[in-house]
Amino acid sequence: MTTITSHDNAQLKELRKLTQRRRERERAGRFVAEGEDLLAAADAAGWEPLQRFCAAGSGLAGTEVIPELLSRASGIASGTRAVAVYAERWADTPLGPVCVYLHGVGDPGNVGTILRGASAFGAGSVVLGPRTADPYSPKAVRASMGAVFEIPLVRVTDEALDRLPGTTVALVADRGAPLAQAGLTGPVTLLIGSERDGLPVGLVAAADAVARIPIANHSLNAAMAATVALYELSRMPR
Amino acid sequence: MTTITSHDNAQLKELRKLTQRRRERERAGRFVAEGEDLLAAADAAGWEPLQRFCAAGSGLAGTEVIPELLSRASGIASGTRAVAVYAERWADTPLGPVCVYLHGVGDPGNVGTILRGASAFGAGSVVLGPRTADPYSPKAVRASMGAVFEIPLVRVTDEALDRLPGTTVALVADRGAPLAQAGLTGPVTLLIGSERDGLPVGLVAAADAVARIPIANHSLNAAMAATVALYELSRMPR
Repeated sequence: MTTITSHDNAQLKELRKLTQRRRERERAGRFVAEGEDLLAAADAAGWEPLQRFCAAGSGLAGTEVIPELLSRASGIASGTRAVAVYAERWADTPLGPVCVYLHGVGDPGNVGTILRGASAFGAGSVVLGPRTADPYSPKAVRASMGAVFEIPLVRVTDEALDRLPGTTVALVADRGAPLAQAGLTGPVTLLIGSERDGLPVGLVAAADAVARIPIANHSLNAAMAATVALYELSRMPR
Repeated sequence: MTTITSHDNAQLKELRKLTQRRRERERAGRFVAEGEDLLAAADAAGWEPLQRFCAAGSGLAGTEVIPELLSRASGIASGTRAVAVYAERWADTPLGPVCVYLHGVGDPGNVGTILRGASAFGAGSVVLGPRTADPYSPKAVRASMGAVFEIPLVRVTDEALDRLPGTTVALVADRGAPLAQAGLTGPVTLLIGSERDGLPVGLVAAADAVARIPIANHSLNAAMAATVALYELSRMPR
């Protein structure tokens, strides 16, 4: 078995491109997961890696790479001992009974956390709308703690409200009924807006219902609000 | 007004120490908040800065600093235009009716997010237990989005269960009743453990009750679990 010892190795170059650039991920339809925990989550969910790299001497599976070079190819952590490349999977149809639609959620950590919450509370899919961070970026994959391998992802370039399953509920900060009292039964799609500006006015107007998480002070970020809403929806009969 | 132009300026040195080292913050009893949003949150909550710095030419209040030097003194973001130093505030007594006790929550982003959730859902205080990240670290202050200026903080070096108000409830992943069915009335202290290992066995055994957030798959991180639990507690009569 050969150990990769050069920064200019073609496979390492490809790895760096995929970790660093969304456009490269989209062009190749591939992404990178880093760290033994994430690779184990992928294995458990039945995802076959296209390539697998490990730090030379680690005894892990994959093409050996000098540790320093592997760390430099990594999108996040230094000291990563295992990295793998996977083919992105995009589902065609948003599934319920609970679906989450993200619009302008630009922070990859929030997107990953929402994937984790959606998986935890049994959502059927997450739809990535305009101006939303790439769920296959290293930070989102990391924040999802492997949920990216579990929950079907759909991407849409327009608002596509008519394709979303069930009752569409715009989650806003300061209007509408408390979610628990919104009288929701049957399938629901939860609409989540950007951290700073929330949902666009037109999208809120077009939604079937408007609801909020009642709070005493301050504010919740997009990921916290989505997680609490998913919890609340998981409590309701559906 | 003089503009600070040297990396070796004594005030900038102090600023860098406070952003970089917990020990320096503890020794001085001071911490740093960065960015106009956080400084506005401090103003709104009635916190008077001990010192205030701004990027030269920004027109903001404070001692002017060459922008590049100010960014280098910053704990997180490049491009920070305003930074201020505050005196830490530590309350002596944990307050309810809902209190949060953190034990081994080592990630400052999670600690900050929990402060934000505690403030949003009207908790009376947050107690920082052993091996918990400093709530006054730059990352925690940032993640709190200013909640650090709103919610009373108490620090304890031992487990100090007997000083916590109300019924102590250990939040765990896989045992106990669902929190919503735990029959909690009156004041409650929620015990939250580390991201990887949860609460120590002895602490769970010593708690008045054990509860969990029911999930379908996967897992929640400490901040998500705490936020959902605080939401659930805010729904109950108390």
